[in-house]
Amino acid sequence: MTQHESALVSAESREVTKVAALDIGSNSFHLVVARINAGSVQILHRVKQKVRLAAGLDDDNVLSAEAMERGLDSLRIVAQSLEGFAPDSVRIVATHTLRKAKNARQFIEAARAVMPYPVEIIPGQEEARLIYSGVAHTSHTEGRRLVVDIGGGSTEFIIGEGFTPMVCSSLQMGCVSFTERFFAQGELKAKAFDKAITAVEQELEIIQEKYLKLGWIQCIGTSGTIKTLFNLAQRDRPNGHAIPVTLKSLKELMKRFIELGHTDKLDMPEISDDRRVVVAGGLAILIGVFRALNIDGLEYSPAALREGVLYQMEDELHSADIRGRTATSLATRYDIDTAQANLVLNTSRYLFDQCAKPWKLKSRDFRNMLGWAASLHEVGLQINSRGVQRHSAYILANVDMPGFTLEQQNLLATLVRFHRKKIKTSEIPEFYVYDTTSVRRLIGILRLSVLLNIKRQEAFLPEFTAAASKNGLVLTFPEQWLEQRPILYADLVREQSYWQAMSLSLGFE
Amino acid sequence: MTQHESALVSAESREVTKVAALDIGSNSFHLVVARINAGSVQILHRVKQKVRLAAGLDDDNVLSAEAMERGLDSLRIVAQSLEGFAPDSVRIVATHTLRKAKNARQFIEAARAVMPYPVEIIPGQEEARLIYSGVAHTSHTEGRRLVVDIGGGSTEFIIGEGFTPMVCSSLQMGCVSFTERFFAQGELKAKAFDKAITAVEQELEIIQEKYLKLGWIQCIGTSGTIKTLFNLAQRDRPNGHAIPVTLKSLKELMKRFIELGHTDKLDMPEISDDRRVVVAGGLAILIGVFRALNIDGLEYSPAALREGVLYQMEDELHSADIRGRTATSLATRYDIDTAQANLVLNTSRYLFDQCAKPWKLKSRDFRNMLGWAASLHEVGLQINSRGVQRHSAYILANVDMPGFTLEQQNLLATLVRFHRKKIKTSEIPEFYVYDTTSVRRLIGILRLSVLLNIKRQEAFLPEFTAAASKNGLVLTFPEQWLEQRPILYADLVREQSYWQAMSLSLGFE
Repeated sequence: MTQHESALVSAESREVTKVAALDIGSNSFHLVVARINAGSVQILHRVKQKVRLAAGLDDDNVLSAEAMERGLDSLRIVAQSLEGFAPDSVRIVATHTLRKAKNARQFIEAARAVMPYPVEIIPGQEEARLIYSGVAHTSHTEGRRLVVDIGGGSTEFIIGEGFTPMVCSSLQMGCVSFTERFFAQGELKAKAFDKAITAVEQELEIIQEKYLKLGWIQCIGTSGTIKTLFNLAQRDRPNGHAIPVTLKSLKELMKRFIELGHTDKLDMPEISDDRRVVVAGGLAILIGVFRALNIDGLEYSPAALREGVLYQMEDELHSADIRGRTATSLATRYDIDTAQANLVLNTSRYLFDQCAKPWKLKSRDFRNMLGWAASLHEVGLQINSRGVQRHSAYILANVDMPGFTLEQQNLLATLVRFHRKKIKTSEIPEFYVYDTTSVRRLIGILRLSVLLNIKRQEAFLPEFTAAASKNGLVLTFPEQWLEQRPILYADLVREQSYWQAMSLSLGFE
Repeated sequence: MTQHESALVSAESREVTKVAALDIGSNSFHLVVARINAGSVQILHRVKQKVRLAAGLDDDNVLSAEAMERGLDSLRIVAQSLEGFAPDSVRIVATHTLRKAKNARQFIEAARAVMPYPVEIIPGQEEARLIYSGVAHTSHTEGRRLVVDIGGGSTEFIIGEGFTPMVCSSLQMGCVSFTERFFAQGELKAKAFDKAITAVEQELEIIQEKYLKLGWIQCIGTSGTIKTLFNLAQRDRPNGHAIPVTLKSLKELMKRFIELGHTDKLDMPEISDDRRVVVAGGLAILIGVFRALNIDGLEYSPAALREGVLYQMEDELHSADIRGRTATSLATRYDIDTAQANLVLNTSRYLFDQCAKPWKLKSRDFRNMLGWAASLHEVGLQINSRGVQRHSAYILANVDMPGFTLEQQNLLATLVRFHRKKIKTSEIPEFYVYDTTSVRRLIGILRLSVLLNIKRQEAFLPEFTAAASKNGLVLTFPEQWLEQRPILYADLVREQSYWQAMSLSLGFE
């Protein structure tokens, strides 16, 4: 190795530890760039851009062209500051507004033209979990804490201890959407606040009892709305120490807002121009939350979703992938037949390793996803063995899966949906991140792995080889073995025609 | 009471114990009329009519007009012999062909014009359970038994002990459909038998291991196909005693069929003209079943689905409703919060009893159905609390529910589907048996019961009264109580608008 080469390698390995997370929020986009160094995360810089994506969502959940353009403009700026980052070291997560938008695909595709990193929509629960992780990694408390994050379109609630979230909820109310709903003309009336606060308490009815039962010692708030309200509460502090937000201070602030009468007149220096237009909705939400959950006082933490994403990336770098834990816990909860799941898993791994290169299954995550699909393809047995493929897919599409993005969760559900029985290619959904050809091929591998283990007996399947070509696979069994098993043979013949429909050839001898 | 009146009463109470069950099968319709006398069922008479409904089902699962007309003709004859029967003493169940037919509704509606008893489509599992019940009530064996019923469109497999079925399966293969698929032109070739038998074994692959593991001491077959094949096997009996069907005897029969070469030439006296045209498919199925399940010998039982239906009616007369057991077992399996379920159940019962008359909720089964919906509305929590109404409905629509018809199961799923959150009346499905107005009203009662118990606390709800009018309900709470609970008040205001969409008025004070 020459000196020059050695320098290159070391530069590369330094680059791997530089990571970036972008949070495409309903109100703002937050970019944070950090260095990961022996397990510690050092923030290098942060960029925040007001985009107010949520304001562009109409009643039919269609995101307006203007809002999209605002978002893309913001992404163009981000793309510049991320030049030179490897694809694996950038993660972009989108939350409430893109979860809701029917035309999210359009935005995600346009985003791809702007920068080479895929935008991942994460479920509300996952957002809550990541927020908690961000707070837990940056501030330490003994005992249980309640974390509240008021975003533009949703508000997250988490109770956890140490690094472990115990309950996570994401409710569909945010400072942008509530301001639009109750203070659309900018007028700040007592009646509107009353209505808004009652609406918040109605939303919280469903989680209230569970949260109150668990209880907490400390309550921490995150994100812009709470930061502003926290700063306003500091006006009253007796000395240099920060004091928590209380219901009393919030009510006084509301009184002041109503006296001023209009958002344009909110002239407190703690309220930035950007914040002014959405702060009333945020205030109403926080008051409702204080009332429903009997909160005494709330501290502020500057860490939030984006920090959670960074710590998740750090975890993954150390291969402590939380998704593996999720899959294991689901398998336990749904009482999976582990022996059978492992038979299918082993076959699918072998087949994948033969096919990955010739079939151009490029993403390094495909092998993981296929493995989890193999492990979980029978969760639906808990509902019924008839149509198990549909039931498994339903459960995996709807259950909380910590660590998985919506897209990953949907890929898992899709693989499992088609693990047996008829398959119509038109029923395979399209994905933002994954290409159709790869998805079909993963389905093919999973189906074949299930089929070859249909007897559910470890001793059934002999040593066999799989030889993959560009668009096909040939299985070779020991002499006479397949001839003596006419039912498996007939199954494989039938499978051949399904593969054909997916533009794959299947041979066996 | 005059003598005349007394005679009337006694005639009526005698009539209640006379019951009839009609099985709308894929090949034949079977009517059986019986007297139920102190728990014993005395068969009065049986009528069998060849209809071959399954032959009228095309590749797109549309039932032809001719097949429907054949079916209706048959029902007209049945209707005559059931004249004077009370609605509650007749039960009509339909199986595979109507389960499959996309236009089943059309047939069911036409049937209603012919006779006043509703046609109920039962799930395959339920069919299997009833068949087992028919056999168990009419023949006794020690130890486990396997019951096999080859129908026109499906074949049922049950292992049970005494009166208790342990596993029930219904596979989509029957003598009509298999004859159409493999012997369409009536030619009886060795190759076609080979193909058909392999197809049977493929179908059985999925249940084979489970059944073989459980094992059985005696194997019993029911219905026309097996009766014919059993009678043919008796040709070889050494003396007067009946001998079981063996694989050897079936293979010899197949050889003979192939020698004769065509269904027209099957001149054995044991094969009736009607049976001749479908016996080849039935023979192939039974050979496949013998091979896949290693059956030594098979006895014949004349009892089948219709007898199972009769014994179920007898059970219900003694109010040992198996559906209650099903609901209890589901509640346990899905780990329902019983305290909460009972709060909702109690409120729903009270509301139902106030509304039943003015709202014309006529079916005496509605109170039961509402009760089970209240008990099971949170089964979906096992998947996720977000969208629990959808998850509960999914589970109840897909899980096996012994004792419930498809229609009853769907009603339960529908009630639960709309127990909270937005409701669009266009999303409420139409039913064959239940009228739209009643379904909406039951939804209204369940929603209100859930809403009033949203706090999940026994002490929360005070004594209140509900006064029902023709199309409305007014709740009266203790003075000031509602005013002091503005969130519940707001919830009720919102609920009011949902009721309005269902043409119901909701008042509260």
